[in-house]
Amino acid sequence: MSFLDEVPWDADGLITAVAQDASSGKILMVASMNREALKQTVERREAVYWSRARKRLWRKGEESGHVQKLVELRLDCDADAVLLKVEQLGGIACHTGRESCFFRKLEDGRWVTIDPVLKDPSLIYKR
Amino acid sequence: MSFLDEVPWDADGLITAVAQDASSGKILMVASMNREALKQTVERREAVYWSRARKRLWRKGEESGHVQKLVELRLDCDADAVLLKVEQLGGIACHTGRESCFFRKLEDGRWVTIDPVLKDPSLIYKR
Repeated sequence: MSFLDEVPWDADGLITAVAQDASSGKILMVASMNREALKQTVERREAVYWSRARKRLWRKGEESGHVQKLVELRLDCDADAVLLKVEQLGGIACHTGRESCFFRKLEDGRWVTIDPVLKDPSLIYKR
Repeated sequence: MSFLDEVPWDADGLITAVAQDASSGKILMVASMNREALKQTVERREAVYWSRARKRLWRKGEESGHVQKLVELRLDCDADAVLLKVEQLGGIACHTGRESCFFRKLEDGRWVTIDPVLKDPSLIYKR
């Protein structure tokens, strides 16, 4: 029995995936995986997600070069989420050019952008 | 405009919520919130989730005492996930009596339980 069979894929065949920087512990992003994405993630040792917007497999970093090297993979108690501890190449996970997608913080009832853009997105996606 | 209005609630009116220990950086759990859960989380400064199994608001720790005190709340770039940095009372987030729900690690193609049970669940949920 494959480890893939122990995942109770949801009605859309997906599971939630959380990517965490293995060194800093910072949460980089939350995305979805289908069975093939999880399989390829383990085989390649690099994060592969399912893009719900583009409806296709999305090898993280395929355009940006910001590949996520898999360091450790974990499954939660009710098996509806996986946790990827990764080495984030380029130090940027977010398409906005920030380290993490969670760059907005609630302050006095408002979402405030508190993390800096490390690289202009137009320079990341020029290829 | 409320910060709640900036969340594009999904078809079920939910958003993914990731809870992270504010001190250790450990990922404790992944759950869902609806609008009321997120509102109450901010008002109480304690995590309130939407239980999809029980179809009701679930004040984390209401039975176990393992309340999650909200330290910081963040929203991701496409606003489909929130990150809660919390102080985990009792040091246990998982209903199995473990610190984190992500206690299984993929090793040689198998999910292996690697984190210890800190407290017998029958002692946690006796109330």
